[in-house]
Amino acid sequence: MPTQFDPPSGTRDFLARDWEFRERAFGRIRSVFARYGFEPLVTPSFERLDVLLGKYGDDSDKLIFKILRRGEHEGTGEADLALRYDHTVPLARVAAAYGSQLPTPYKRYAIGPVWRADRPGRGRYREFTQCDLDTLGTSSVMADAEVICAVHDALAELGLTGFRFLLNSRHVLAGLLEGFGVPADLGPGVLITLDKLDKLTPGEVSAELAGRGLAEDAAASIVAALTADDAPEQIRDALKTSEAGSAGIEEVNQLLSLLAGQIPADRIVFTPRLVRGLSYYTGPIWEVVAPDVPGSLAGGGRYDHLIEQLGGPNVPATGGAMGVERILMMLPEPGGAHTRLDVAVTVMAEQYAARSFALAAAARAAGLRASVYLGSSGKLGRQLKWASDTGARWALIYGSAEDEASKVTVRDMTTGDQAAVPVSTLTEYLAGLADAAE
Amino acid sequence: MPTQFDPPSGTRDFLARDWEFRERAFGRIRSVFARYGFEPLVTPSFERLDVLLGKYGDDSDKLIFKILRRGEHEGTGEADLALRYDHTVPLARVAAAYGSQLPTPYKRYAIGPVWRADRPGRGRYREFTQCDLDTLGTSSVMADAEVICAVHDALAELGLTGFRFLLNSRHVLAGLLEGFGVPADLGPGVLITLDKLDKLTPGEVSAELAGRGLAEDAAASIVAALTADDAPEQIRDALKTSEAGSAGIEEVNQLLSLLAGQIPADRIVFTPRLVRGLSYYTGPIWEVVAPDVPGSLAGGGRYDHLIEQLGGPNVPATGGAMGVERILMMLPEPGGAHTRLDVAVTVMAEQYAARSFALAAAARAAGLRASVYLGSSGKLGRQLKWASDTGARWALIYGSAEDEASKVTVRDMTTGDQAAVPVSTLTEYLAGLADAAE
Repeated sequence: MPTQFDPPSGTRDFLARDWEFRERAFGRIRSVFARYGFEPLVTPSFERLDVLLGKYGDDSDKLIFKILRRGEHEGTGEADLALRYDHTVPLARVAAAYGSQLPTPYKRYAIGPVWRADRPGRGRYREFTQCDLDTLGTSSVMADAEVICAVHDALAELGLTGFRFLLNSRHVLAGLLEGFGVPADLGPGVLITLDKLDKLTPGEVSAELAGRGLAEDAAASIVAALTADDAPEQIRDALKTSEAGSAGIEEVNQLLSLLAGQIPADRIVFTPRLVRGLSYYTGPIWEVVAPDVPGSLAGGGRYDHLIEQLGGPNVPATGGAMGVERILMMLPEPGGAHTRLDVAVTVMAEQYAARSFALAAAARAAGLRASVYLGSSGKLGRQLKWASDTGARWALIYGSAEDEASKVTVRDMTTGDQAAVPVSTLTEYLAGLADAAE
Repeated sequence: MPTQFDPPSGTRDFLARDWEFRERAFGRIRSVFARYGFEPLVTPSFERLDVLLGKYGDDSDKLIFKILRRGEHEGTGEADLALRYDHTVPLARVAAAYGSQLPTPYKRYAIGPVWRADRPGRGRYREFTQCDLDTLGTSSVMADAEVICAVHDALAELGLTGFRFLLNSRHVLAGLLEGFGVPADLGPGVLITLDKLDKLTPGEVSAELAGRGLAEDAAASIVAALTADDAPEQIRDALKTSEAGSAGIEEVNQLLSLLAGQIPADRIVFTPRLVRGLSYYTGPIWEVVAPDVPGSLAGGGRYDHLIEQLGGPNVPATGGAMGVERILMMLPEPGGAHTRLDVAVTVMAEQYAARSFALAAAARAAGLRASVYLGSSGKLGRQLKWASDTGARWALIYGSAEDEASKVTVRDMTTGDQAAVPVSTLTEYLAGLADAAE
C-alpha cells in the first residue's frame, strides 16, 4: 500500500545500504571504462524541450517528463524544459557545443539517472540509471572492439558469469536480404520480423514474413538458415556472392580476430539473426545475453549518422549501453551486517562527555569510523546495545573507574573481551585497531 | 553568446576534467562524513508537488521547477511533480516513511543536485549541488558538536584555510531580547534587523530598530553590546539574569568545551550577533566565514520542530549544509595536463591491429590506462601526436621491424627514449611501468 510518504510512483529512496551497493558497482564500471581511456561526461538533468522532442519517435515523446514554464508564464500550462530521456541526445548536443575542445576521438561514458514516464513495474522505474559508453569520431572497427571489450570487462568485474556476446553486423543483414532475394521495399519489415526469432517459433516467423508479402519459399529458407545449428557457417556461405554480405562477414571476422584472446571464445558468438530493433545502426551490432535472463544485459553497435540526426556534428560513432538496473538485480545482495561505525564511544556521565567526544576524535584521527553515544540513557547496557546496532567492532568506555585510573576500557564487541588501555598510549592502540579493521 | 547547443540557462555540462575535480572534492567530503558514522541518503530527483509546495514560503514556491502531468492530463497544463528544491523536505518524508527501519539517531548526509528557478549569475545556478549533514532523533548537544566537527574536518580535508566558525544559540538571542527589554512582539523583527550587523553600520541598524518601534536607548545599547570588541564577555554578563540567556550561554559553553581540542581555538568564535535568517532554529546556530569571501561557506544549527512541520515525525534534529559550489570556486584548479591514458598504443598497419589491440589489453591487465590509436593515419608522427594529446607517459609501437624482432618498442613520451622489449617479457615490463605510474 503506497502511503503519502512513499517516493513518487516509479522512483526510489536509496538508504545507505542500497546506495552503497549501487555505488560500489558503478565505481567498478567507471574504473574499467577509465582503464580504456573513456572519460566521464555529466550533462544537466534537464534539456530545452525542443532539444529532446522529435528525437525518440512519437510514442517515446509521450514518456518525456516536461517542465512547466515559470513565473508569469506558468499559467500558460506550457513546458519549455524536459528531463533527460537518455544520454545520447545530450551527447550529440555536447559534441556540437564543444567541438574542438573535445579530444578526437571522443571516448566518453555517462552513468546517471534518466527519466521516463513509463508504467512502473518490477525492475522498471521512472527514474533509473543508464550506463552508456560511446566513441565519436572514428570509423575504426577497433573502436567497436574496444566498446565490446570494455563492457565485457565491466560485467566480469561485477562478478557476472555465464553471459555471452551475440555479434552481428548490419551489413550481414543487408547481405542476407540480398542473398535470399528479399525485395528492397520489404527489407525493413522483414528485419523487424526476423528480430522476433528469439520469441516466436520458426513457423510463426515464416508465416509473419509471408504475411509481409515475402514469397513463402524465400521466407522458409531464410528462417531455416538463421535457425540452423550451423547458422554462422550457412550464412557465411550464403553471403559470399553479396557485396554487402561479404563486407559484413569481413567486419565480423575482423572483430572476432581483435577480440580473440581478450574475450574467451565461448563468450562471443557470431549470431546472424541478431537484428536489434533500432534502425539507426550502420555496422557491427551486439547484445549480451545470459541464461534464464529475459532480454539483454547490454547492447550496442555502430551508428555513423545518428549524432548528426540528433542535431550534432556529422561524425561516425559506436557505443553501447549496460542495463545496470537489471544487472544490479542479478548481483548478490551484500551479505553480513551493515556497519556504520568501527568504534562506538559510550558517554557514561555528563562530566565525561568532552573526554568521550575526544576519544571518538582520536579514533577518527587513526582512520576509524567513530562516534559518541547521542542518546539519553546513562546505562552501559543500553549504550552497548547501541554500539552493537551500529555494527562497531569495538566500544570505548570511559566512566568514573576509567577516569580514576586514567585508562580507557576497550571492549571487543564480538568476543566481549575488555582491555584497559592507558590514556597515554591510546593513540598507538587505536592505530593497531585501525590496522586490524582494514 | 549562448547558442542552441549550450545547456539550458543556469545549468552546466561537466566535461571530464571539471567533473573529476568535483568528484574528488565530494569524495573527500563523503569520506569525512562517513568517518563520523553519517550514512548516505539519496532521494528521487522529483517529489510529488504537494510534498514541496508551501514548505519554503511563497517566494521560494515560485522558484520550484514543476513537472507537467502526462498523457491525457498534459493538456490541463497542471503540474503533479516538482524537482527537489533542497534535501531537507525529502529527509522529513523519508523519516516519516521508514521510521523504525532507520537507525536511532539517524545520521545522514546528502550530496546531490537540487533545482531552483533563480536568476542565474556568477556562482548561482539553477541546477547545483547541495551538501547536507543532519542528525535526527537526539537532543544531545554532542550531536551539534559532531556536525560542526564534521564540517570543520571536511573543509580542512579540502585544503581550505583561514575559515572561522561563528557560534551562537537561539537561546542567547532570546535572552538578549529579554535582557535588553525588547517587547515580545518586536522580538522577531528585531532579530531580522540585528542579522544585518555584518552588512550595515551600527548606526543604520539602530535606526532600523527604532523604526521597528524599539526605544532608541534600548536599540543603541543592544547594538553597542553586540558590536563591541568584547561582545562575548559583555553578552555573557548581560545574560546572567535571564533564564533563556543563561541556558543559551550554558549551551554555547558546552559546545565550546566539546570542540576544544578538536577545532583550533582561533577557528571558533562565540558570536552573539549571529542570527541566521531562518526562524526554525531552536538551539545552537553556527556559520563558517572566511576573509574576503562574502556570505558564508557553511552554516547550520538545531531545528527541533522543523521535521514535524515539514510533514515528518516529531523528532529533535540538528544539521548543517556546506555551500559546495562556492567552496569549489575557492579551491585551486587542478594543475598540469589532463591525462586520459598511461599507455598509448600505435597501430602501424592493419595486419598488426590485433597485436596492437592485445598490447593495450596487456597494459590494462597490468593496471594501466591504455588504448590503441583509432584514427586513420598510418604515420608514426601523427600517432605519436595523438599519444601526446592523451597525456600518455609511454607509447607502445609495433610495426614490421618489431614484428620481425618479436619486440615491442616502448617510447618514454617525456624523454623520447625508446626501449626494445621482447614480447616474451612484456608482461613484467608493463608491471614495472604500472609501479612507476602510481
